[in-house]
Amino acid sequence: MSIDSSANYCRLDTSGYSPEASIFIVFGASGDLANRKIFPALYDLYLEHQLPEKLIMIGAARRDYSTISFRAILREACHAHSRHESEARAGTWESFEQRIFYLKNDIEDGSSYDSIRRLVVDRETSVLEGFPDGADLPTNVLYYLAVTPEFFPVIAENLGRAGCARGSGLNGWRRLVVEKPYGKDQRSASDLTASLHRWFDEQDIYRIDHYLGKEAVQNLLHFRFANTIFEPVWNRNYIERIEITVAEQEGIGTRGGYYDGFGAARDMLQNHLTQLLCLTVMEPPATLSPEHIRDEKVKVLRAIPEYSRDELLRRSRRGQYRAGISALGEPLPDYRAEPKVKPNSQTETFASLELSIENWRFSGVPITLRTGKALAEKFSEIVLHFKRPPSALFAALCGDSLAPNSLTVRVQPDEGIWLSFNAKVPGEPSIRSNTLRFSYREVSDYFPEAYERLILDALAGDSTLFIRADESVLAWNIIDKLEAAWASSDPNADPAQGGLCMYPAGISLAELSARLHDASEE
Amino acid sequence: MSIDSSANYCRLDTSGYSPEASIFIVFGASGDLANRKIFPALYDLYLEHQLPEKLIMIGAARRDYSTISFRAILREACHAHSRHESEARAGTWESFEQRIFYLKNDIEDGSSYDSIRRLVVDRETSVLEGFPDGADLPTNVLYYLAVTPEFFPVIAENLGRAGCARGSGLNGWRRLVVEKPYGKDQRSASDLTASLHRWFDEQDIYRIDHYLGKEAVQNLLHFRFANTIFEPVWNRNYIERIEITVAEQEGIGTRGGYYDGFGAARDMLQNHLTQLLCLTVMEPPATLSPEHIRDEKVKVLRAIPEYSRDELLRRSRRGQYRAGISALGEPLPDYRAEPKVKPNSQTETFASLELSIENWRFSGVPITLRTGKALAEKFSEIVLHFKRPPSALFAALCGDSLAPNSLTVRVQPDEGIWLSFNAKVPGEPSIRSNTLRFSYREVSDYFPEAYERLILDALAGDSTLFIRADESVLAWNIIDKLEAAWASSDPNADPAQGGLCMYPAGISLAELSARLHDASEE
Repeated sequence: MSIDSSANYCRLDTSGYSPEASIFIVFGASGDLANRKIFPALYDLYLEHQLPEKLIMIGAARRDYSTISFRAILREACHAHSRHESEARAGTWESFEQRIFYLKNDIEDGSSYDSIRRLVVDRETSVLEGFPDGADLPTNVLYYLAVTPEFFPVIAENLGRAGCARGSGLNGWRRLVVEKPYGKDQRSASDLTASLHRWFDEQDIYRIDHYLGKEAVQNLLHFRFANTIFEPVWNRNYIERIEITVAEQEGIGTRGGYYDGFGAARDMLQNHLTQLLCLTVMEPPATLSPEHIRDEKVKVLRAIPEYSRDELLRRSRRGQYRAGISALGEPLPDYRAEPKVKPNSQTETFASLELSIENWRFSGVPITLRTGKALAEKFSEIVLHFKRPPSALFAALCGDSLAPNSLTVRVQPDEGIWLSFNAKVPGEPSIRSNTLRFSYREVSDYFPEAYERLILDALAGDSTLFIRADESVLAWNIIDKLEAAWASSDPNADPAQGGLCMYPAGISLAELSARLHDASEE
Repeated sequence: MSIDSSANYCRLDTSGYSPEASIFIVFGASGDLANRKIFPALYDLYLEHQLPEKLIMIGAARRDYSTISFRAILREACHAHSRHESEARAGTWESFEQRIFYLKNDIEDGSSYDSIRRLVVDRETSVLEGFPDGADLPTNVLYYLAVTPEFFPVIAENLGRAGCARGSGLNGWRRLVVEKPYGKDQRSASDLTASLHRWFDEQDIYRIDHYLGKEAVQNLLHFRFANTIFEPVWNRNYIERIEITVAEQEGIGTRGGYYDGFGAARDMLQNHLTQLLCLTVMEPPATLSPEHIRDEKVKVLRAIPEYSRDELLRRSRRGQYRAGISALGEPLPDYRAEPKVKPNSQTETFASLELSIENWRFSGVPITLRTGKALAEKFSEIVLHFKRPPSALFAALCGDSLAPNSLTVRVQPDEGIWLSFNAKVPGEPSIRSNTLRFSYREVSDYFPEAYERLILDALAGDSTLFIRADESVLAWNIIDKLEAAWASSDPNADPAQGGLCMYPAGISLAELSARLHDASEE
């Protein structure tokens, strides 16, 4: 077999996990996610010599591709979406594609899984068109479900019935990588988990939240627990409030069919923002083992109070965009006029929720999660606002207006850490707020995409950056109550009483907050 | 009088102090300090519109200058040493020099003060050659003693006898600015203070330590007390040790006659490094009034334990440079071969002292002061080394070697604040130390020289940045004991037992510390 063996794997990993050779089967291989994210990530990992040498990648989908034609399609896709420059890629595709094969598969047709069974159980390499005679076939199998969520249980069931899931006395592991959305509410998420658990153990299920793969997010635990100076002030004694924001400039584009049934709270708050919250406020884990870290995240979610309907309405805001010019300079229609959106849709495209974590460390500190589409800004960040210093000393210079310190963990686009502090203005007896800055881009050229990290971790069996079933359920619990509160309110009510606020596309967060009577911005 | 009145004074000062019109008399006006620092600083202040409009500057010295020839000399000096570009200065000198006059004066000759008396008491403007008829003469008088220290009491005495010091029922204030060195030991400093106090009140004496005029030093109190996030870790619970360094690359040059009688401890430790120490560890003052701040500095000095001779020897190091190539690329001779240095001199050109401040905040934290000449490095900085974070969590990645955090206040040359912290290496499961950076030069174009600030403050009556008599005495107390310990030791002993370590010019601090068996560098 002619897989390029110069691509030596040399990942520094002393934590006990390293990516293992396996058969990597992507369901939905002809879809957007596979073409724009998964295969380009695999290619980028290959270019960085990070892939296990004997990884076999298989695309599975319903179309009548040959391995040759599938490779040609991926070549286009990977070259379009790889983060590497064309010089870095020169001459590499030919050896990379030797590892890629295509397997026709109809997700819903049980008999269609026969070829997968013959491959992973009977180890018949002949089912792979173009697989070199006598070449090794890894025993581990990773199933990547890059399909719409209604097919998650279908695939798991069909794999299980075909004997391709856990057990069966087979060597190697069988892992399942599941994309979002993971359920639409607590009930459906629990049902989905039950379906998957019939054929896969919880430890073999990798629920993707691509935010957790971002470098700045991964760094949160390092930043908090590998330093002496931040942890002492990382609590209710010093922190006034916390704000976690994911702002987007785009409208919903072509995703109306999915999005209109979900909305910003289910699509973003339940997963990305809740995950950022957990990593920001969790206690130090006993060890960095995936279960210990996820135990701490679950503890955070358990410490969110059960808010009454009225209190949830008071603490939350929802909005929906109207026609306007997006921050990208393009005209957007009313959300309700977007393709596949119901003309009377009450689905929110902006959502915010102020909650608190009632534990010893953070009790009483307001934490605002907010996210929206068609906004002026595009960034994701966590901001810790510290309490004001006693201003008596500088009252003559500043009155009561000495700026509070803040620490910003910028997740994207310009990953870094910003610490605002007060300093003397050179040459003047006055004070001005300044910033201590750290930018990831300044210290490293190697900046993998989130998917690269997550794929490597799934291959390594490190589930730290994936969502555990109980996390998912607890996060849905909050969102379910919020959705119920909104569903029971008049959309025309005041924004502070559950009303759905209409905002023009391209509005700034500050202006939107003012419209929403959101005290946290004042 | 044709003083340019477009130079409006517009200093923002809400703290109750502003520079007042006065007669500014510089003794030693033909000397180096006056030509290189004082008059260029006055000129720079003028260019920044910071000088009081009616300031009259008078050079006093023994030479037979006319006001015209004195102005011509200053013109050369100011243009050579001003920090302003020539474009910024164009056409300004002619109006500036209208404020400058020359007065011949023999410091030691009492009758020579007659003209000063006629000017400041009798208000005879005719003693000033070229002073415009009918122009205003300010009532305030500032005497700037830019002369060698043996003349400090002489000038004060002669001014007093001539009726030009305090009292005498005169309007306006009489202030005395005194350069360093202020005494050579506790006894001589106390004697000097007694001499000055005969004719000037303590509140009218401004003892210069030009380090206090540096922006990064002035900012220390703002940084510490106008922020919430640093003060909680600014104590013995979080700080492992503190290091204050003033490293110079030059040898002693032409200053041998003065320096050989002083050495690094008297020349630098007693004043600059002790001042940096006080501002670093002092408690927050009740207010920012000069006396309240200086009270806190004195409290720090009082909390330094009385070390025994043996303990002082163990805690201190002294060295003297030998011939070598300086870091500036120039050959330096043995210190003992420098002009006006005794051939068997035991004077130290490097000194370090580890002490502690035995108060509630800093008890037990080792604080190292160190300074030297002819070193590889040129910088002044304060570094707070924080305790190591508990490393258990990251032991697999880092073993015991997780880098401790440190906070560096860089005083010169690149003024700023650097906060080192640990962060994840992008794309790798490993940790690396990174730096949050703030640079003063990035936030301001206006960067006055230390002398500009100190002159303005003396004109404003703000003595915050000047040394009070009791500070000086307490600082000498420590140095006296150190000098006594060294004087009683064999210069050939081990460096840790009082020996004088010879080091080649151009040596790095790290290498020198190793030679000195200085545990603090390990």
